[in-house]
Amino acid sequence: MPLPTAARRDALRALLRKADLDGLLVTDLVNVRYLTGFTGSNAALLLSAVDDAASRFGTDGRYTSQAATEVPDLPPVIERSTAVALASRATGRIGFESDAVTVDAHAALVSAAEGATLERAPGLVQRLRVIKDDTELAALRRACAVADTALTDLIAEGGIRPGRTEREVALDLETRMRALGADGPSFESIVAAGAHSAIPHHSPTEAVLQAGDLLKLDFGALVAGYHSDMTRTLVLGPPADWQRELYELVHAAQAAGVEAVAAGTATSAVDAASRDVIADAGRGPEFVHGLGHGVGLEIHEAPALSATSADVLAAGMAVTVEPGVYLAGLGGVRIEDTLVVRGAGPAELLTGFPKELQEV
Amino acid sequence: MPLPTAARRDALRALLRKADLDGLLVTDLVNVRYLTGFTGSNAALLLSAVDDAASRFGTDGRYTSQAATEVPDLPPVIERSTAVALASRATGRIGFESDAVTVDAHAALVSAAEGATLERAPGLVQRLRVIKDDTELAALRRACAVADTALTDLIAEGGIRPGRTEREVALDLETRMRALGADGPSFESIVAAGAHSAIPHHSPTEAVLQAGDLLKLDFGALVAGYHSDMTRTLVLGPPADWQRELYELVHAAQAAGVEAVAAGTATSAVDAASRDVIADAGRGPEFVHGLGHGVGLEIHEAPALSATSADVLAAGMAVTVEPGVYLAGLGGVRIEDTLVVRGAGPAELLTGFPKELQEV
Repeated sequence: MPLPTAARRDALRALLRKADLDGLLVTDLVNVRYLTGFTGSNAALLLSAVDDAASRFGTDGRYTSQAATEVPDLPPVIERSTAVALASRATGRIGFESDAVTVDAHAALVSAAEGATLERAPGLVQRLRVIKDDTELAALRRACAVADTALTDLIAEGGIRPGRTEREVALDLETRMRALGADGPSFESIVAAGAHSAIPHHSPTEAVLQAGDLLKLDFGALVAGYHSDMTRTLVLGPPADWQRELYELVHAAQAAGVEAVAAGTATSAVDAASRDVIADAGRGPEFVHGLGHGVGLEIHEAPALSATSADVLAAGMAVTVEPGVYLAGLGGVRIEDTLVVRGAGPAELLTGFPKELQEV
Repeated sequence: MPLPTAARRDALRALLRKADLDGLLVTDLVNVRYLTGFTGSNAALLLSAVDDAASRFGTDGRYTSQAATEVPDLPPVIERSTAVALASRATGRIGFESDAVTVDAHAALVSAAEGATLERAPGLVQRLRVIKDDTELAALRRACAVADTALTDLIAEGGIRPGRTEREVALDLETRMRALGADGPSFESIVAAGAHSAIPHHSPTEAVLQAGDLLKLDFGALVAGYHSDMTRTLVLGPPADWQRELYELVHAAQAAGVEAVAAGTATSAVDAASRDVIADAGRGPEFVHGLGHGVGLEIHEAPALSATSADVLAAGMAVTVEPGVYLAGLGGVRIEDTLVVRGAGPAELLTGFPKELQEV
């Protein structure tokens, strides 16, 4: 049975032929992984528009055996300067990833590619990556389930309480995700207590959780290369009126965003559906970022869910919806889910932890 | 008192004047951190060759308060497309990091930089970064000490034993480093048991440790942005003759490499000093990688310690020395230290865990 990556390479070949390219030199390591399954730290792929036999997978001597295991279905080239080695073997009109290749690397590739002309070809693999296949969806579901369980267990076992530091909570959460099978956190966890919750991206500190604090947790699990992403904001003890009010506003905005997620909808319209709720309450200026983003082999990938995005949702896209309102010096609330767009009906919610305000 | 980053910017200004540049547009996030102290995920710096007042630090709205805290000494520009926003404010001959800026990003910068000409200026900040200042050395020492203690404790408390999986050992090691104050592992830990130890870069699996296995651990701690890097190879129980022989060979080669580390020595000579020991034993083809690399804000940075490197060691450089011999299907040994080159005398050893073969 062919590996799932074989179908991805075939889909890319169709794009190459449409662009009148004889091949694509793939040097972005995430794209290489998507197309080959290779998980090492140095690799490139010269994908021929003809077939796999005319393609070459390149890596260096540290990864000879790993390449044989992970990429059994492509002819290998083992050389330290992998991309240059593949460029020197290329012939015809070869696309390169102009959105990933540096100006200097491009010059080196051009020097090496004596038998080929290199053409800008940005975003071709990303265009495929926005639509997740079954293998990818399975990994995303597992990653989101790990994060759900870790947070549930953390709360149930008293891991969130006055006296602990933000760093301790982050470590506890990440250790639980690892024990549940994650390869690691999918990004540096945000654990932000009290006034820190008003900082959209806050690195955990030695700050001590206090009764009455809002606690914002934005975190995820990395499973088989796929990233989950979820934000929940809790309160330590009974909420003050302003906290409850702020929470209900963001909760309503988040629900409106989730409801707007559907195949065929412009991502800017999804952003607006959520943002309008916050703007109508006079809090527009305190929602300082886009509504969400695609998620998969990278924690942030296409499509963008923002006012200025030109993307349109399609079945199989995995996206976050994460409005937030931040009151500087006081506190902030963000609520974020990861969802998969379906061809018909509501999106599939991957992050299942409850969104009602939780007192811990 | 000025921040340590102010002196780094002054040193960079001297390089800019020498290159006849009016400024440098720094977009590589690691370089931005080095020059400003900013730790967020989106930033750029337009460093004027004149002074800080004529320079601009750019980030987006998520990081307004963080920028004020971390970068109090540079005028801020808050815009989403940070690099483009700074390019549009530039005048004169402005260098850009051609080794970090993609072909497409370069095109966008050129469009925006109506008042400036953009010149290739690769590696300028990296040239400064190879020599660590006192703040950096302190962070590296702490990172290496955390890794030392974590491994010592892991062994003392029975964490390495037959029946545990590679993944369990990796998680235990990383959790200990976190508890000891690390922000995380400095890269994906390598825990490779038995025949897996012959794979230079092996990701931990569910493979179970067995009595008699070699166990290769290559790992590090991330502290204040700085990466430690250490490899030790242990044996579970009494070593077989071939294991002891292989170990002693790599141990001797590593000692020869460490001894060769001195200011003024070519890194290729250090590589040769270690590699010759292995080659003389007929194992040259099984040492499939370079001897080492610089380490600091990145886990791999200049200088390279390899046969083809043209770098020369200088006081203040932090480098690894990590020969390995890998017998496919059987097992491998790698021993790695992180060292700081001194102006005179032997290098400072930052990774103190013993290098004699340990039976656990």
